[in-house]
Amino acid sequence: MSRPKPLSGFPEYTPEARIIEQFVLDRLRETFELHGFASIETRAVEPLDRLAKQGEIDKEVYTVQRLHGENGPADLGLHFDLTVPFARYVLENAHQLAFPFRRYQIQKVWRGERPQEGRYREFTQADIDIVDAETLAAHHDVELPLVTLAALERLHVDLGLPPVLMRVNNRKLAQGFYLGLEIADPAAVLRHVDKIDKIGPDRVVEQLINEVKITEPQARRCVQLAQIRSADASFVAEVRRLGVEHDQLTEGLELLTDVVTTAARYVPGRLIADLKIARGLDYYTGTVYETELVGFESWGSIASGGRYDSLASDGRISYPGVGLSIGVTRLLAPLLAKGMLRASRPVPTAVLVAVDSEETRATAIEVAEQLRTRGIPAEVAPRAEKYGRQIRYADRRGIPFVWFGGTVGGEVKDIRSGEQVSADPASWMPSSEDLKPKVLSLTPSC
Amino acid sequence: MSRPKPLSGFPEYTPEARIIEQFVLDRLRETFELHGFASIETRAVEPLDRLAKQGEIDKEVYTVQRLHGENGPADLGLHFDLTVPFARYVLENAHQLAFPFRRYQIQKVWRGERPQEGRYREFTQADIDIVDAETLAAHHDVELPLVTLAALERLHVDLGLPPVLMRVNNRKLAQGFYLGLEIADPAAVLRHVDKIDKIGPDRVVEQLINEVKITEPQARRCVQLAQIRSADASFVAEVRRLGVEHDQLTEGLELLTDVVTTAARYVPGRLIADLKIARGLDYYTGTVYETELVGFESWGSIASGGRYDSLASDGRISYPGVGLSIGVTRLLAPLLAKGMLRASRPVPTAVLVAVDSEETRATAIEVAEQLRTRGIPAEVAPRAEKYGRQIRYADRRGIPFVWFGGTVGGEVKDIRSGEQVSADPASWMPSSEDLKPKVLSLTPSC
Repeated sequence: MSRPKPLSGFPEYTPEARIIEQFVLDRLRETFELHGFASIETRAVEPLDRLAKQGEIDKEVYTVQRLHGENGPADLGLHFDLTVPFARYVLENAHQLAFPFRRYQIQKVWRGERPQEGRYREFTQADIDIVDAETLAAHHDVELPLVTLAALERLHVDLGLPPVLMRVNNRKLAQGFYLGLEIADPAAVLRHVDKIDKIGPDRVVEQLINEVKITEPQARRCVQLAQIRSADASFVAEVRRLGVEHDQLTEGLELLTDVVTTAARYVPGRLIADLKIARGLDYYTGTVYETELVGFESWGSIASGGRYDSLASDGRISYPGVGLSIGVTRLLAPLLAKGMLRASRPVPTAVLVAVDSEETRATAIEVAEQLRTRGIPAEVAPRAEKYGRQIRYADRRGIPFVWFGGTVGGEVKDIRSGEQVSADPASWMPSSEDLKPKVLSLTPSC
Repeated sequence: MSRPKPLSGFPEYTPEARIIEQFVLDRLRETFELHGFASIETRAVEPLDRLAKQGEIDKEVYTVQRLHGENGPADLGLHFDLTVPFARYVLENAHQLAFPFRRYQIQKVWRGERPQEGRYREFTQADIDIVDAETLAAHHDVELPLVTLAALERLHVDLGLPPVLMRVNNRKLAQGFYLGLEIADPAAVLRHVDKIDKIGPDRVVEQLINEVKITEPQARRCVQLAQIRSADASFVAEVRRLGVEHDQLTEGLELLTDVVTTAARYVPGRLIADLKIARGLDYYTGTVYETELVGFESWGSIASGGRYDSLASDGRISYPGVGLSIGVTRLLAPLLAKGMLRASRPVPTAVLVAVDSEETRATAIEVAEQLRTRGIPAEVAPRAEKYGRQIRYADRRGIPFVWFGGTVGGEVKDIRSGEQVSADPASWMPSSEDLKPKVLSLTPSC
């Protein structure tokens, strides 16, 4: 067996990087649970017909088949997001869920992408959604970005991850605006306006005139609308200045105002109204969210989502929802690859208990057991070598302390400072800094 | 979309059951880290040729293919255990790992089994392994069951899971015994002796005579060996009484004695030497482990493993290892299905903050935020209904407390007792019992 090569698009972490990932996942989980979201996990596979329903996405699905099973076409695929499986889970379990149902879900997803720089075929997402039966109150559109921003802010403060900027829009606002301009096909306008960052406002105007067949004044106002943004409610006056009236527009403005003003209160500077945000997929029907890492905008959105009036329906009852998905791998993998995050050590172990000779290994085990009982991660030296070699072993693994001697009359050495003190395994504690691996940011400028 | 049906073999949990699973996984992780095992995760897929190498297992593999990719045969499969991917990970990353390398890995695995009661196609395993380069010291064979038993003991004490009994044997012991009896094909004997529980000792003797072509006295002694078991070192005398001599036998007896006597000291009553344990797969070369839940032996082994002299090899260096795998789904799913474990509530939320009217929702958000800052999971009532209805909503979701009023002059009601007291969101705390969901065992007899 020769040395295997990594598979393109399937990132795997070193033990050190995994400590950082666990740190991030633990904090996401904690934030979600503090906000009353319950965890669920869904199976990795869904029936293909369920995966294939969302527009073009079926192109990226991995199919799954028993190697020695039936020879027909595959009928299962790996899930490519956590929304489709969640919708199915809600329908399947509606009879035993209390609505509105608040859930978070942190799992891997798979996409059969062509291998390409920055494209992942397996990656981790952390989703939160709230769904209700029949109708879902508007205030949840305000709540979801607050929870997401609280989670990302925690990563910023605790880990030194770059700060984020969430851009929010509302489909009703744009839709109402277009209808108020008496444009017959608002969806077509949205599709073109969505390209404004890529091709610029002038070419969007051109395309709107030539392809959607609207007048130049109409097209210009659509583009003017898309260029409005503000960190407070001032976007409303700017929109009103364009002189368009429509009930849906008014509704959209009110909803978006509510999101922006509430966010300004709890997470100031982290959320703006940005009226060009459209989100590609068609199923969003109200608020839409995108989030960039400040200074790393080219990485794309690391937390996206929106409201969908019908996440799922069993034919009788429909389940509207609002959700946001944090791209954990998309956020972390580049930071790890650039060495911008480090763990204080690559192992959980705080103390290596040295071994005098194989005959006294039992004593070392006893010391390690006493330390563990009090929550101190400890391991026993694998070889009863000279102490110098045992210390070098600890050093190579990043273990900060080495214990010498037994449960009575023992000594513990901090191998970084060289300081060695008498210690009792029933009472000695490392500093809280050293108890568990810490995550260090090497990006003080962010 | 009609109500979807579960897929056979792909268990999914309710939010309540998921809380129990998380509780278990958290405790496994904590125990593993206390013993200095580092976490890794490997990708879900491996090249098929790597999966197909382990004897018959390739029959159960799920292949994975891009739906719109090349039309040739699949070259990737979902991993069916965590040992094969770990071996590949060690080879791939050997240059940046410190040996002996101690890792734990908690992930889902997939097997393309025919659907059948109690057979899972997707399930969670929790593995610990220690691998070294070239040689791995024998004391790790003693260490691994101690860590596994510490983890399972914690589940027994904290969750009321049934206690376990680990049965340990050593392949060298049996192998040396057979060689000492001058049996030419020890592996063939082992295969038959492995069936002793299913077909009984007499039929094993019969088969050994007829199929392995050994004499009746030889066969009888092989079966006598397999029937020896003890919770202390007394099995050695019993084996010696059979009058067989061989270096490998002696080595195996010493190794097994070490495991049994050390375990008796740290986890008394939880581990026995049981000389009939063989473990089906061929790659184990020394100690082998199996573990049953006491009272639920028919569920099979819930933690198995052993030593393999060459987990992986890159042609130049070989990596011997010893590992144990806890079948988390196999352990939990039946207990959950039988209702033997319950969570104190199915949501993380400790406090529902009631809402007077939509106009004062901001006040309720403020209260919830203050509670969360101090680690109290809180959510705001979804609808500004009559208080009675909001209390019923909390009750339906299992939330123990409802908060009325704002940040000043508020009151909190324990809806179980009906007790309502004045409270300040900056200082009020629920009891530690109520802060987070607790897991309750309904099996006091175990």
